[in-house]
Amino acid sequence: MDEIMINLDTLLEIIENKEVTKLRKLFDTHEIIDIAEICDEIEDISKLLFIFKTVKSEFTAELFTYLNEEQQAKLINSFTDKQLKELIDNSYTDDIVDFLEDMPANLVTRVLKASPKEERNDINKLLNYKEDTAGSIMTTEYVEISVDLTVKEALEQIKKIGQNAETISSTFVIDKKRNLVGVLYLEQLVLSNEDTPIKNIMNEEFLTANVHDDQEVVADIFKRYDRTVLPVLNNEKRLIGIITIDDVIDVMEKETSEDIAIQAGMQPLEDEYLKTGVFTLAKKRILWLLILMISATFTSMIISKFEGALSSATILSAFIPMFMDTGGNSGGQTTSLITRGLATKEVTTKDYGKVIWKEFRVALITGLVVATFNFLWIFLELSIGLVTNSGTIANWQVAGLVALTLFCTIIIAKCLGASLPMFAQKIGLDPALMSGPIVTTLVDATSLLIYFLLCTKIFQLV
Amino acid sequence: MDEIMINLDTLLEIIENKEVTKLRKLFDTHEIIDIAEICDEIEDISKLLFIFKTVKSEFTAELFTYLNEEQQAKLINSFTDKQLKELIDNSYTDDIVDFLEDMPANLVTRVLKASPKEERNDINKLLNYKEDTAGSIMTTEYVEISVDLTVKEALEQIKKIGQNAETISSTFVIDKKRNLVGVLYLEQLVLSNEDTPIKNIMNEEFLTANVHDDQEVVADIFKRYDRTVLPVLNNEKRLIGIITIDDVIDVMEKETSEDIAIQAGMQPLEDEYLKTGVFTLAKKRILWLLILMISATFTSMIISKFEGALSSATILSAFIPMFMDTGGNSGGQTTSLITRGLATKEVTTKDYGKVIWKEFRVALITGLVVATFNFLWIFLELSIGLVTNSGTIANWQVAGLVALTLFCTIIIAKCLGASLPMFAQKIGLDPALMSGPIVTTLVDATSLLIYFLLCTKIFQLV
Repeated sequence: MDEIMINLDTLLEIIENKEVTKLRKLFDTHEIIDIAEICDEIEDISKLLFIFKTVKSEFTAELFTYLNEEQQAKLINSFTDKQLKELIDNSYTDDIVDFLEDMPANLVTRVLKASPKEERNDINKLLNYKEDTAGSIMTTEYVEISVDLTVKEALEQIKKIGQNAETISSTFVIDKKRNLVGVLYLEQLVLSNEDTPIKNIMNEEFLTANVHDDQEVVADIFKRYDRTVLPVLNNEKRLIGIITIDDVIDVMEKETSEDIAIQAGMQPLEDEYLKTGVFTLAKKRILWLLILMISATFTSMIISKFEGALSSATILSAFIPMFMDTGGNSGGQTTSLITRGLATKEVTTKDYGKVIWKEFRVALITGLVVATFNFLWIFLELSIGLVTNSGTIANWQVAGLVALTLFCTIIIAKCLGASLPMFAQKIGLDPALMSGPIVTTLVDATSLLIYFLLCTKIFQLV
Repeated sequence: MDEIMINLDTLLEIIENKEVTKLRKLFDTHEIIDIAEICDEIEDISKLLFIFKTVKSEFTAELFTYLNEEQQAKLINSFTDKQLKELIDNSYTDDIVDFLEDMPANLVTRVLKASPKEERNDINKLLNYKEDTAGSIMTTEYVEISVDLTVKEALEQIKKIGQNAETISSTFVIDKKRNLVGVLYLEQLVLSNEDTPIKNIMNEEFLTANVHDDQEVVADIFKRYDRTVLPVLNNEKRLIGIITIDDVIDVMEKETSEDIAIQAGMQPLEDEYLKTGVFTLAKKRILWLLILMISATFTSMIISKFEGALSSATILSAFIPMFMDTGGNSGGQTTSLITRGLATKEVTTKDYGKVIWKEFRVALITGLVVATFNFLWIFLELSIGLVTNSGTIANWQVAGLVALTLFCTIIIAKCLGASLPMFAQKIGLDPALMSGPIVTTLVDATSLLIYFLLCTKIFQLV
């Protein structure tokens, strides 16, 4: 499809030779986001400015939204007032707000000053919505239609005012009091007779979001009900904006990344990994490492408690990492699965009974198979001398002890792994917080306790 | 918005009392997917059939797609040929194929027999595309327009044939040889002058997918280029179908769930968690548990090798779980972050140098902070007798030894955690395979080795 293959060198060459036609052709034949990726690497801002001077502003406005913050800030600093106004005129309000959120205050002021009054009000309003709410991802550029029009009149009105809207695929029908009374899909308008009153074809049952709704709730509506646009209402139930699917997909990706970070025992990043500084990255990780490290104190206490047993049979310590790891892994499997299920709404806290009964049976099977293999493997290791047993406990006894511990550990790990995220959800915490590392820490202590109790009290091997 | 609140009881009541008007009203005022969720719980199939007899078939066709497999199979068994034909007429081909993929062969045959010939061919073709390819998620119901029409003629044609298409928001322009030469958005048609030849307004540069492309590649195109529809070409570059955003969102969710499962050391599930049997769940988990368990043999070998050191100072074993867990956790943090970055294309293998340098510095900071805390904490634990040190190594020496091990472990864990997923990607494996559990196993062995070497060779404490 792409007739000219571009990379940084060819782009710089085009700019240096001022090949205006070629540059314009580039924007006709390439996806803007692909060009933006290359423009991110241009260091000389005057070269980037040349593109903005040469290419149609509808293209450069889109290009601008895809550039990284650094380039955006440099450009705004270098733009003339006229260029700035042109950029704003050709951008959707939600895109302007998106980049303003990360800009220093003086640049925000510059952009606001250059914006026409009405747009400035919209931008200011959008900037004030709390991050991660419906308000923060909505746009104010939608088409409103009065309820008493016919299909023909509606289409005419869309033609007149639709050029500036982010989408006309859905338009919003309001009554005289400016209440939202219906949603009209462009497809319906096109497929209907010209004289039909839109009242007869509009959808009077429609989903909406409140401007203060969490963006995750909004994303769930899009996913569950296969929407591409959703109207946003304020607390007085008046229509104040719309959310489009492209922004929702970004939200979905971001929320998933956050869940994954939390589950791995980190605070989520606000920015992309490569754009995040070393100190911020470290800060996001240290807290959980410390919490988990201190929780591991229980394991030290248990081992120290059974010091007597260990000193009379050092072979006992050789398999501690093995059953601790396996316990942690089997608990982690369940936790990830259940946490993901809660995130996609495949599983809800109401299913707790079903889930725990299922996991218990899965644990029985898994435990039986893994413990059996474990018994045979450890017996083999000891018999061929891969691991030396110089103590008084027989090889089969050591293997049996570890395997039995493993069996109990897997059962406990799976039940804990299923319960913790559901419990967190129930009490209103993020289930991702009950992550693999926490389950591992809990399971570690439990399995050590089982191990030493089996060894000293139940079987009295030492 | 919902005037009648419904649950299983009220729905069953409506059906038992044959309240036809109320039942129809229900479908007018509720989202079909919400009704389907309740219908999944109806056990008496005749009651479900009553709904299909009473309610408009455009609604019941949608209802059918949302039901679970069990209900779908029961319904197909009970439908008359006429009902079956009505269902097929009112469903999109991709939805029919979706449910047929999970049905027993005799039901598939029934459905195919009831389908009109042309539709039957389409269904058969779609059923034959390999799972997880563009072909398996596309639909054949799109609108083709001849390139020599005007806007007015195109709109007339869309009105005529658009009723059966899954979407008319994009239509596809073909030349006389039936090659795809342009894509037309409905918005463009509506906003343009009636006499304009569509040749002048259509987009001649457009993205396409090949029918054999992996669905993940397709999803990436939708995400990166903010598309809602994508044309699908066969190997001869002829247009054979389209993919719509709703199906892509499902793919995105499914692919993320798969990645999460693999990263937690499991084979991904084919079905939803609650619908998957206990034996299947166990089977998906056992293999990795066994592999990881056997890999943990190294830890046993190392501990057994340094048995002498342990027997003369049992306090040494008390902190093994603590530094092993912390090492595993810090490696896991990095692995999750990098694997996710690779999945969202935020990070590519080309960034390896940047990533490893970043992680090394993050590890230095994290290691320094965590090891310092660790030293103080262990010294405290030993001093107040939370953990008893009855050996000859001084408390500060034990604390120093563990802290130093921890520092080295964190550095190694973070570098390994960053390298493994990128290496996997480089050699064409799924980076999610280089999961937290694998990093943990590797880090466990390394940290043990460091610990014992520091203790016996470097500092000669025992």
